[in-house]
Amino acid sequence: MAKGNQFVKEIADIEQDFPQWYTDVILKTQLVDYGPVKGTMVIRPYGYAIWENIQSELNKRFKKAGAKNAYFPLLIPESYLKKEAEHVEGFAPEVAVVTHAGGAKLQEPLIIRPTSETIICDMYAKWMESYRDLPIIINQWANVMRWEKTTRPFLRTSEFLWQEGHTVHASHEEAEEKTQEMLNVYKDFAENCLAIPVLTGRKTDKEKFAGAVATYGMEAMMLDGKSLQAGTSHYLGQNFAKSFNMKFLDKDGALKYGYSTSWGVSTRLIGALIMAHGDQRGLVIPPVVAPIQVVIIPVCMHKEGVLEKAQELCNMFEDAGLRVELDKRDATPGWKFNEWEMKGVPVRIEVGPRDIENGKMMVMRRDTLVKQEYALGDVDGIKELLDVVQKEMLTKSRERRDAKIKWASNLEEILEAVETKNFVKAPWCGDRACEDAIKEFSQASARIISEDCADNKNCAVCGKKAQKIVVFARAY
Amino acid sequence: MAKGNQFVKEIADIEQDFPQWYTDVILKTQLVDYGPVKGTMVIRPYGYAIWENIQSELNKRFKKAGAKNAYFPLLIPESYLKKEAEHVEGFAPEVAVVTHAGGAKLQEPLIIRPTSETIICDMYAKWMESYRDLPIIINQWANVMRWEKTTRPFLRTSEFLWQEGHTVHASHEEAEEKTQEMLNVYKDFAENCLAIPVLTGRKTDKEKFAGAVATYGMEAMMLDGKSLQAGTSHYLGQNFAKSFNMKFLDKDGALKYGYSTSWGVSTRLIGALIMAHGDQRGLVIPPVVAPIQVVIIPVCMHKEGVLEKAQELCNMFEDAGLRVELDKRDATPGWKFNEWEMKGVPVRIEVGPRDIENGKMMVMRRDTLVKQEYALGDVDGIKELLDVVQKEMLTKSRERRDAKIKWASNLEEILEAVETKNFVKAPWCGDRACEDAIKEFSQASARIISEDCADNKNCAVCGKKAQKIVVFARAY
Repeated sequence: MAKGNQFVKEIADIEQDFPQWYTDVILKTQLVDYGPVKGTMVIRPYGYAIWENIQSELNKRFKKAGAKNAYFPLLIPESYLKKEAEHVEGFAPEVAVVTHAGGAKLQEPLIIRPTSETIICDMYAKWMESYRDLPIIINQWANVMRWEKTTRPFLRTSEFLWQEGHTVHASHEEAEEKTQEMLNVYKDFAENCLAIPVLTGRKTDKEKFAGAVATYGMEAMMLDGKSLQAGTSHYLGQNFAKSFNMKFLDKDGALKYGYSTSWGVSTRLIGALIMAHGDQRGLVIPPVVAPIQVVIIPVCMHKEGVLEKAQELCNMFEDAGLRVELDKRDATPGWKFNEWEMKGVPVRIEVGPRDIENGKMMVMRRDTLVKQEYALGDVDGIKELLDVVQKEMLTKSRERRDAKIKWASNLEEILEAVETKNFVKAPWCGDRACEDAIKEFSQASARIISEDCADNKNCAVCGKKAQKIVVFARAY
Repeated sequence: MAKGNQFVKEIADIEQDFPQWYTDVILKTQLVDYGPVKGTMVIRPYGYAIWENIQSELNKRFKKAGAKNAYFPLLIPESYLKKEAEHVEGFAPEVAVVTHAGGAKLQEPLIIRPTSETIICDMYAKWMESYRDLPIIINQWANVMRWEKTTRPFLRTSEFLWQEGHTVHASHEEAEEKTQEMLNVYKDFAENCLAIPVLTGRKTDKEKFAGAVATYGMEAMMLDGKSLQAGTSHYLGQNFAKSFNMKFLDKDGALKYGYSTSWGVSTRLIGALIMAHGDQRGLVIPPVVAPIQVVIIPVCMHKEGVLEKAQELCNMFEDAGLRVELDKRDATPGWKFNEWEMKGVPVRIEVGPRDIENGKMMVMRRDTLVKQEYALGDVDGIKELLDVVQKEMLTKSRERRDAKIKWASNLEEILEAVETKNFVKAPWCGDRACEDAIKEFSQASARIISEDCADNKNCAVCGKKAQKIVVFARAY
């Protein structure tokens, strides 16, 4: 095990004060900073590099799902928001409004997109004529704005970055299938890239997207037992099609409304990553999305041949397609060890004069803090190690998470479970009143409807016959 | 030569009505559409794919220049804009203003960034303490907004996408060097990726960025002889450093203001591409940034083995790293030829039963419309061809451009030259009044100050001793 990390002292105790730990870590590792306008964030290079890796991995998967990227305008006429009744009710309270531009008052106020269903459906209506034009499968990477009262970098900010996919189909079966397909894309991505196990399933009506027929979400457990909604996929039925006159001429010669979907993940995922894997030393970033996968730290840097050898190693790793950094700064190896541990770099390599002499290098895994010797320049070995780290981080997270999903059959058990940092599975009759009662009593909300069988079970609140098993948790 | 293209009829004559030709081409090829708010555009998948290729090529070059990507907030407090006197004068008339958010009036209005010097310098001031923190070299990919009276998709829109690099240095020499370095990065990119030859040089004071000490621009000649400013690099001196208190502790123990630069290119580049290379059939896209580099069109598609072979070819090209599309749509080969010509795909491959029998494929270059037979599946041959196309497009553009740079020694000659679609080199005394007179008389503005020697030359307007040779042109 590595010796104690000096930065540990400067980071709040992860067990005692998780929110402060989060703030300390994100600021000290320079992932992010506060912007001058309340609720905004500046994503600094180290944080943005994670986002770029997330984008690259998702783009690969979106392409396989037939999606192409495009870009729609930031500003939406206020009247558009009002066309879909539920949608305006959900989003109107949190929009930012442009009233003046070019030195004059605008005739119609414009809102900064909180999400783009309205403007995108308006364009699709223009583009689709016949069934031959369907499906339309387009994704956009963009900034959106939702004016929130309580904000925290990555988790909830007035402006955030995200992707939003929007599709239209000729049949509701096809649209529902796409909704599920994209939910599974997210699940695959969360588990295999972020190493975060997720629960997926339909949301209750209370928790669904404003304007959707059905919302499916994926929920990730954070280290404090709270849930973070890490992505959603919505089946919109013909709701937006009817509001925006999104019609097509079908094979049978009839003019029909299309069926649409939308799905998105955001810079929240960076918050998820931090709170799913961190420890007292700081970040632990899974290799697939790590800005730097391997850091090389020369020991006795000024001894002849050390820096040269370290640079040679660095070039070898780079040529092998790894994201590697050689830390040549004028500081002690110990200080560097601590800093890179805090920054969560998955693998650290130390190279000193003795290592070079013996043809060895000392390698440390950030996730386990275990050290092991490798042959100097064993690129394949390090690549394998990164794969192992990626997989074991998921396994470890899954085991931890699975051990913290409890069953409850009444309000007290639900409260007890969430107080001890668990997710709770509880039977539910389907009534909004009972869902509200659970929230009121335990501050736990319905995260997803699970696939578990509710037969012979009774609602945890009213005792009537249960319709569903629901996963409840306190949530970000 | 290929036979006449049916779409030709539907596109305005490129010689007679270039602006209408532009509009017809961008809409018919589905690069872009008009957004619902005046002056906004929707970048459709075919257009956005060009932008993604531009981003990827620039990111490679920025990384070599030491830049890291980050993201700063969209909304800037109005008071920030006012901190740099020239800057506010230049941008205040065209900003969009958010006055309400979250259902309430804001205490201070917020502007949507027209450019981010102010907010970025504010953050840098917070981040930099000592000379060890310098230089800071950060780039951001973002949307910006400038409320323009006359707009045209890609060329001038109220919202556009761009990158803006912002650096701070400890010395003015280093900052000036970075300004030049980035200008050269843009030039290299424009020439080798977009196949557009550019003139680079310093801008006159009249044309410089609001708040800069010096602006350097690159200017590209469009097919109608007009110039398009395709990128700029600004040396900002200590102007923003002083307005935003951007100080650092230097090696000598003194607290000093930093020297900053900024540099940007935007979705305008897509407009440049179209107007530099198009022809009567539509787009001609250089291979490096083409969304589809090779299109495969099966002939007698329903004959046994044709589609299978075409798919096999498609997979081979894809595996070789090319962006390739197999057009399996239910339409005639002739119709497909025409459509892909209009869309500017650099290389088209036809495969029919006879070709398969003879082990051949017919290949057409979009830029020259020349057809040539290749061995079936000759991936290397096609890769070489794409390189040749890329290089020859630049050569052809450069020859055309060079033949259209004329010298003029008085106002009449300047007018005559720009009327006949040329750039003009003219001697200039350095007075704003003479620059204004040229604009007034010929509608040509000073594009860049050239490196040509002005000795023994007299100003084209006042006849006094010339200080500089300036390139004048009508401009987008």
